[in-house]
Amino acid sequence: MAGNSFGDIFKITTFGESHGAAIGVILDGCPPNIEIDEEFIQSELDKRKPGQSKITTQRKESDTAQFLSGVFEGKSTGTPIAIVIPNEDQRSKDYSHIMDKFRPSHADYTYQMKYGIRDYRGGGRSSARETAARVAAGAIAKLFLKQYGIKIFAHVSGVGTIEAPNLDSKDLKTLLELRESNIVRCADPATANEMIDFIDGVRKDGDTVGGRISTIIRHVPVGLGEPVFDKLHADLAKAMMGINAVHGFEYGSGFKGSQLKGSEHNDIFARENDKIITQSNYSGGIQGGISNGMDITFKVAFKPVATIMRDQPTLNHSQEEATISGKGRHDPCVVPRAVIIVEAMAALVIADHLLKQRSYKNV
Amino acid sequence: MAGNSFGDIFKITTFGESHGAAIGVILDGCPPNIEIDEEFIQSELDKRKPGQSKITTQRKESDTAQFLSGVFEGKSTGTPIAIVIPNEDQRSKDYSHIMDKFRPSHADYTYQMKYGIRDYRGGGRSSARETAARVAAGAIAKLFLKQYGIKIFAHVSGVGTIEAPNLDSKDLKTLLELRESNIVRCADPATANEMIDFIDGVRKDGDTVGGRISTIIRHVPVGLGEPVFDKLHADLAKAMMGINAVHGFEYGSGFKGSQLKGSEHNDIFARENDKIITQSNYSGGIQGGISNGMDITFKVAFKPVATIMRDQPTLNHSQEEATISGKGRHDPCVVPRAVIIVEAMAALVIADHLLKQRSYKNV
Amino acid sequence: MAGNSFGDIFKITTFGESHGAAIGVILDGCPPNIEIDEEFIQSELDKRKPGQSKITTQRKESDTAQFLSGVFEGKSTGTPIAIVIPNEDQRSKDYSHIMDKFRPSHADYTYQMKYGIRDYRGGGRSSARETAARVAAGAIAKLFLKQYGIKIFAHVSGVGTIEAPNLDSKDLKTLLELRESNIVRCADPATANEMIDFIDGVRKDGDTVGGRISTIIRHVPVGLGEPVFDKLHADLAKAMMGINAVHGFEYGSGFKGSQLKGSEHNDIFARENDKIITQSNYSGGIQGGISNGMDITFKVAFKPVATIMRDQPTLNHSQEEATISGKGRHDPCVVPRAVIIVEAMAALVIADHLLKQRSYKNV
Amino acid sequence: MAGNSFGDIFKITTFGESHGAAIGVILDGCPPNIEIDEEFIQSELDKRKPGQSKITTQRKESDTAQFLSGVFEGKSTGTPIAIVIPNEDQRSKDYSHIMDKFRPSHADYTYQMKYGIRDYRGGGRSSARETAARVAAGAIAKLFLKQYGIKIFAHVSGVGTIEAPNLDSKDLKTLLELRESNIVRCADPATANEMIDFIDGVRKDGDTVGGRISTIIRHVPVGLGEPVFDKLHADLAKAMMGINAVHGFEYGSGFKGSQLKGSEHNDIFARENDKIITQSNYSGGIQGGISNGMDITFKVAFKPVATIMRDQPTLNHSQEEATISGKGRHDPCVVPRAVIIVEAMAALVIADHLLKQRSYKNV
Repeated sequence: MAGNSFGDIFKITTFGESHGAAIGVILDGCPPNIEIDEEFIQSELDKRKPGQSKITTQRKESDTAQFLSGVFEGKSTGTPIAIVIPNEDQRSKDYSHIMDKFRPSHADYTYQMKYGIRDYRGGGRSSARETAARVAAGAIAKLFLKQYGIKIFAHVSGVGTIEAPNLDSKDLKTLLELRESNIVRCADPATANEMIDFIDGVRKDGDTVGGRISTIIRHVPVGLGEPVFDKLHADLAKAMMGINAVHGFEYGSGFKGSQLKGSEHNDIFARENDKIITQSNYSGGIQGGISNGMDITFKVAFKPVATIMRDQPTLNHSQEEATISGKGRHDPCVVPRAVIIVEAMAALVIADHLLKQRSYKNV
Repeated sequence: MAGNSFGDIFKITTFGESHGAAIGVILDGCPPNIEIDEEFIQSELDKRKPGQSKITTQRKESDTAQFLSGVFEGKSTGTPIAIVIPNEDQRSKDYSHIMDKFRPSHADYTYQMKYGIRDYRGGGRSSARETAARVAAGAIAKLFLKQYGIKIFAHVSGVGTIEAPNLDSKDLKTLLELRESNIVRCADPATANEMIDFIDGVRKDGDTVGGRISTIIRHVPVGLGEPVFDKLHADLAKAMMGINAVHGFEYGSGFKGSQLKGSEHNDIFARENDKIITQSNYSGGIQGGISNGMDITFKVAFKPVATIMRDQPTLNHSQEEATISGKGRHDPCVVPRAVIIVEAMAALVIADHLLKQRSYKNV
Repeated sequence: MAGNSFGDIFKITTFGESHGAAIGVILDGCPPNIEIDEEFIQSELDKRKPGQSKITTQRKESDTAQFLSGVFEGKSTGTPIAIVIPNEDQRSKDYSHIMDKFRPSHADYTYQMKYGIRDYRGGGRSSARETAARVAAGAIAKLFLKQYGIKIFAHVSGVGTIEAPNLDSKDLKTLLELRESNIVRCADPATANEMIDFIDGVRKDGDTVGGRISTIIRHVPVGLGEPVFDKLHADLAKAMMGINAVHGFEYGSGFKGSQLKGSEHNDIFARENDKIITQSNYSGGIQGGISNGMDITFKVAFKPVATIMRDQPTLNHSQEEATISGKGRHDPCVVPRAVIIVEAMAALVIADHLLKQRSYKNV
Repeated sequence: MAGNSFGDIFKITTFGESHGAAIGVILDGCPPNIEIDEEFIQSELDKRKPGQSKITTQRKESDTAQFLSGVFEGKSTGTPIAIVIPNEDQRSKDYSHIMDKFRPSHADYTYQMKYGIRDYRGGGRSSARETAARVAAGAIAKLFLKQYGIKIFAHVSGVGTIEAPNLDSKDLKTLLELRESNIVRCADPATANEMIDFIDGVRKDGDTVGGRISTIIRHVPVGLGEPVFDKLHADLAKAMMGINAVHGFEYGSGFKGSQLKGSEHNDIFARENDKIITQSNYSGGIQGGISNGMDITFKVAFKPVATIMRDQPTLNHSQEEATISGKGRHDPCVVPRAVIIVEAMAALVIADHLLKQRSYKNV
């Protein structure tokens, strides 16, 4: 109800504020006997952590995951897995200047009005720092999905008006290597360079910029997704729209598909090695809300970071005029770090639907 | 879990197949003492029902709502409200030709693979006919929201590549009249004419086309939405993506906003009549997942209808090649009828979040 | 939230008031391809329906189930199964005399205070008539459990101070025949006669009496139940305590077991035909909240029916003194009809936990 | 689904094994601006902690609660409150002798069969150590309920066949003092002495014994409880049956009430100081599943502790015969420590229903 949980069977509940003692997550419903590879989970957290490069925030956090329960001799036991990530580099004093001011396009005003109280330090609960907990749980989801051969790949496909070419038909292993070869996490090296230069310029200008992330999920079995309200793409949409700064979601043909005619857009069935496939994939791997075995593809739009290194007019708690000066350590563009959050949330959605489907049928 | 319910407190569960005895809905959690205006509910259903004009399907259904429970002397009692809408004009024979064939870009294949059985007549449960149940429940949500002065307005803002101008600043009453003055339900009369001509041409060509619906929700109190996974826009996204044929969702600045810089995109706070407002509304009325009192704005993209009046190659249950001939009665474009479904789902989301917020605070 | 649903995967939502148009249920999450034997479902409803004998209410209801959805060619399709049971013999005038009076030990006062409005006719939603919907859904649960060989048997083991002998070790088929051979539904014929005479005397005296129902569930696979809050017996308790008039629940050794010592109460493991069993069954088939393969046994206590055929002092809506005269048609003792409700709720609990367990492991 | 959460709005999720790094809880949905009195919370934990007296286990745990989130400047913020309680005195070696043996009437066998893996040390997740997390969250529920004047009192009313007199009409403050004046936590001093002697004898004999806890909840507003499946007493039953070792639950007149006649059992309404009360309270403060403003009363039965200090025959993982010798540190009777767990779970149920009711109406 208070919305800090996600998933029905493979279910996470996160907690923690940006400048409290720690953030963390309970994963409930992870099947037993899954190999809990702590090194892998940490490597995923490392991809999201701050301070990675010149185009990310300089806050220093090791983001070290501590496992408190649910794992025995390296394997999940079927009981709740609790993970705590202590906050280290908090510098809460950086925030005393915004204690009673509402930062523009942040959640300060709405939290204050909703709760009548808020931990203003670093945005408190509204900070994207909370997403580290999702990444840790998403890494376990990936470990679970591995036994089905399901692979999830996301990369930065757009920054400002810069757009990467469509890479949907490429080999995922290659794409992953290309993505990790640059600091903006775009799998097209030429576009990546362009993006990095652009973000760096924006940063030097004290400004920020938005971007887009594209995702491919491969080898999803046919049949995942519940057909009315819990369509597979509806749950993916909710998962993505729940990530900080996301303003848009589309799957398959997306918004462009709404400009087409049925005769152009229909995916014709064909047989390939005793399997049914479709010749095109405008459906983005999902038909009637249920996976059809083709690649699941979707795109997510992130607004520009609201904290800019400039003075902005605003109001305070007493509705008086005030000025916000850009201080603290912030990202000029969130998408390079958000790539791993998108993958984590996608993994959680697929894992949850896989378990749902297993309750009806041996998947 | 099986995904036929939506909402947590103000909660609906729908049932029914396109060619079964009836479709319907149980609304559980409607507060007591709400005036249940059956005439209004019926008028909402009439806006969704088939056979309204030359650009909608010619299936004839009166879509008459029967109230079985939860209403006493014209008012809700706090107990479940059950509504049944009998199916009348079923012509199930129209579907015998597709009994064992998978229609392209429909849910036939995925249902068959998921369940191992399906009611193939008219798409069974995957038919958009199910959305009539949502409209009936959404109408009750609107009656509930009325006492808060909350108004929801959706209209067709795009068909194919035709795009209506932005109407966000207009008076809603006027917009509603304009919308209802034409059969495509676009509130800009000139664009409406263009759209109608275009759809009619597409229809005569045996083809179909996609479109877009834009929505404005006005007078939402500050504080609705749960800030992590159940952000107000995340629940709106899920609600919209759960509507048949939807492929994309964006709110506020949406995908375009991801091309902007922070200095352009931030919504500066201002004081207006002792109330805090923002000078622009890129945030679409939602900050940190919580309503800020400004208009909530979002857009939804619908793919073209998959059933076209042409022959298409496909496969049957035995993976043999077959031909699908376009038969039955179908819409050339779903958006004119979908406008009311979008409004209904939005009303359900807002009603549910309003009740959630009431559990914490007197809203 | 409003509590008209039960179950997580195999989930029911009921609706309807005693004197409204109909009562009914949506069963969501029933696996596909289950034989929906309508004749069996009706026969279960017949066991609960009023007017069966001199010791049940004389209200006449055929309780005919109408299937609106989710069944195709005699089988479940995996989509919601909606069942409606029209109300026939309503005689709502019988209730005008209690319109603004609070009947003692009924829900009149609490409904009025909770909702500020109520359908007073026949108790409205608080009437046990609602349980017919549970019986219909429970019958489908039984059809599902049949493929696992799971059998559920309940009978009246106590009326007033009359107590039947323990029958836990008997053959269930025989017990069922014995139970159905008498109108009080006690599987011990001698005790049954005593009970019938006693209830009939109570009835003639214008009074009512409480009773107890004992249940045996046989052939439940090992492993059902979630070990912390959703222990199998905790969900059984909730299911039973949710039945009208129930005031107590115990499983296995129950309240008496709390008087024993560990050395007397422990169930020692033994091997029988390559299977692990326990030599005694104080655990009632459940250890640590999880089924252990032994018979699940529990007992439920029902208070006496609150409506008696005598004058009782009470208050009205204006807190003025008033008199309630016993009118209407009521049961002198609910347990003979409640037997089938207990079985239905037990079937729903087991079916739900079976599907949960299937999501982790092939059961 | 995996059952480690309890509550709908005021919702807890617990984690942790008896001999893992820590146990803990996330409380989600606590309203903002509740005073989080850490000293009070710790004092509640102290009442449950081991090593309190000669009649409790000698395991030494300080059970110190660490608050990781959700509290700011001493008040709840509306975000999740995470509490971690590190495990200190683990002596896991005590358990190597049971690594592959199934202890009688414990959860060893059922966990192994359900999950195929288990943390055998001290019972792992099935240990009652987990209930410390419930006590911490329950203490916060009590702090929340304090502002409504709601008081919850439980005490040991039975051990073996020893039974305390009914104290329902007494002043709660006095009862609390009497209860805390003795180590068995029975509010009747004479019975307490008898119980203590009896338990001590049982302990010296290497045996254990069961018992009963009775509870009174005072000053609950009229209107809490959802009338069909989520009746207030049904949720109390589930909460209590979810506590380790509980085998029975009854409220109000309970099992004895099922022996009475309606004319004896009905609670007649009366007016007292402009308030409606009932002259007797067989209903236990709940009518039709909804609180009626009278004291809520219920009783819970605990089986004897399964671990006895004697040799018992059993089987191991390979189904071979083996012997379990009583080792480790265990309680001869759980009820003295369970009193605070019962209160905690009752507080959680009432808090959750209070928030539900607030969503409909200002309570």
